[in-house]
Amino acid sequence: MTTPLYFVGLDVGGTTMKAGVVDDCGKPVAEPISLPTEPERGQDKGLERMDETIRLAVSEAKLKLEQIAAIGVATPGTMDIAGGIILDPPNLKPWRNVHVRRHIERTFKLPTAFQNDANAAAYGEYWVGAGKDVQSMVLFTLGTGIGGGIIMDDRVLEGQHSHGGELGHMRIEMTNPRLCGCNRRGCLEAYASASSVVKRTFEALDADGGKSALHGMFRSHGELTAKDVFIAADKGDALAKQLVDQTAYYLAVGTTNMLHSIDPDMVAFAGGMTAAGESFIERIRHYVRELAFPVPAERTEIRYALLGSHAGFIGAAGCGRQVYQRSLEGKKG
Amino acid sequence: MTTPLYFVGLDVGGTTMKAGVVDDCGKPVAEPISLPTEPERGQDKGLERMDETIRLAVSEAKLKLEQIAAIGVATPGTMDIAGGIILDPPNLKPWRNVHVRRHIERTFKLPTAFQNDANAAAYGEYWVGAGKDVQSMVLFTLGTGIGGGIIMDDRVLEGQHSHGGELGHMRIEMTNPRLCGCNRRGCLEAYASASSVVKRTFEALDADGGKSALHGMFRSHGELTAKDVFIAADKGDALAKQLVDQTAYYLAVGTTNMLHSIDPDMVAFAGGMTAAGESFIERIRHYVRELAFPVPAERTEIRYALLGSHAGFIGAAGCGRQVYQRSLEGKKG
Repeated sequence: MTTPLYFVGLDVGGTTMKAGVVDDCGKPVAEPISLPTEPERGQDKGLERMDETIRLAVSEAKLKLEQIAAIGVATPGTMDIAGGIILDPPNLKPWRNVHVRRHIERTFKLPTAFQNDANAAAYGEYWVGAGKDVQSMVLFTLGTGIGGGIIMDDRVLEGQHSHGGELGHMRIEMTNPRLCGCNRRGCLEAYASASSVVKRTFEALDADGGKSALHGMFRSHGELTAKDVFIAADKGDALAKQLVDQTAYYLAVGTTNMLHSIDPDMVAFAGGMTAAGESFIERIRHYVRELAFPVPAERTEIRYALLGSHAGFIGAAGCGRQVYQRSLEGKKG
Repeated sequence: MTTPLYFVGLDVGGTTMKAGVVDDCGKPVAEPISLPTEPERGQDKGLERMDETIRLAVSEAKLKLEQIAAIGVATPGTMDIAGGIILDPPNLKPWRNVHVRRHIERTFKLPTAFQNDANAAAYGEYWVGAGKDVQSMVLFTLGTGIGGGIIMDDRVLEGQHSHGGELGHMRIEMTNPRLCGCNRRGCLEAYASASSVVKRTFEALDADGGKSALHGMFRSHGELTAKDVFIAADKGDALAKQLVDQTAYYLAVGTTNMLHSIDPDMVAFAGGMTAAGESFIERIRHYVRELAFPVPAERTEIRYALLGSHAGFIGAAGCGRQVYQRSLEGKKG
């Protein structure tokens, strides 16, 4: 007799944490539950909040904890993935050296995976999203920063020091390198993250002499977002189009570096900027054909991710499923 | 009863091909045999020459072909690694679509591996050289060009389109990108290969006004090599020191990009420029500490490769050994 397998994934962010239950095929059983992370209340409260979010997600799925086979938790870095420990992530201040995996294992008495949030999102897309039919995939997540994840043959490339797939911090410029949020210079993130698009836009507006429609958008909104720039570009504003095109170029440089090192089946893009639509990804493809060796340039699939903000908890649940499967193999041996 | 296992590795280059026999621990049984490749004589002659080199290596090891368990062949790209086919490498003109693995398998009736030459060298260093005690390693081979190989958990990262580890062609510059031998711009190879060092040296000498000792070296030798630049730097020539230091910086950028994507245990450097000695690798380490995230910057071992020009055939033999081991597993199952 086989009972259906269910896995809980928990995706912890600086503002909210989200948990959901998926079945053995990665399909969510119910809508995920979101609760505020409130890191400023301290890490003990944070761990309690994780427990609570997991329990609520199981209830929401109309399941009992006894029906859950494993749990996966994803958090932003810095972290020790193998050790299951959050170190001192800038987004979760003042948390420090939090033994997340041990806590969850002890609380729920279930096999528990611990993973970087960008890696988990990549694994989610690989398992049931954009990459579900490929052997290897690189995911760039374009948000305030740029996250990355590399999956090969159903394994997350965690790296020996939990820094695998930190693709926002590959360096692509030496002569005139922009300052990155990490305080280093020339990182991809300093060119192509949503906040870098905004920064580049203000620089361009300073030099533009008032012609672009973005001036008016800024005056009426009191701010500018990457989305505003993409909307203005769609409406034909020349400056906005140039900014969007440059962004596609920078992402193509990052993609090319992945084609010439990992050489995956697929490179996928996730995050808010993917709302820019087909013309943007087509510009990335265009520049990759210009920049990369012909064979990977022609054959590597370049596309948007599919799971949206669900990728993290689904991927975390998928990592939990891997730990569960390995625990079965251990029992067999 | 167990008989000792022997493997032949053949490393095919544009000028010479080299074969040697190693034991099950990767130790060469005798000195390798080198014969001229003479690609201009055509690919059929080339395949015959491979057979001959393998046979001579077996004789040199005072063994018989019946005592060989498997063969590994490494060639320069372009290639289809999984298919065992040389496509149209610039170094082996006019060869085209040469079914190397099939030919060697049929000739010797032995399990045969086929691998990119830089990947094979990386595997050799991983198996028995600089990386023999680590789980994962990235190797940069600094010659006329820059080759690369990535090994993780005893597996060569071949890539889905045989372009894994093409690390000389990661892009590190956009604003003022140097032209690379691959006709692209801004590649690491265009900055830090031996021939790029020479090119940068001539540019610097044009602007130097006759102060550097390199002017005299050029007048007396009628040419300049990367080695000359390193020698002049060792003797204290200011311009040469600056050129060497810049080269270390460029290699540190390439290394940092590997630390932020692969995050290996070790990054190793092979090729002629490694004769530059400890001060050069120490400069690379210095800049990696400046450029990379603290944890991988502190913990990743950065060092020279150990096997010299033997890495290719030893690594090819090691890849042959992997095919042999998999063939045994197949029989068990």
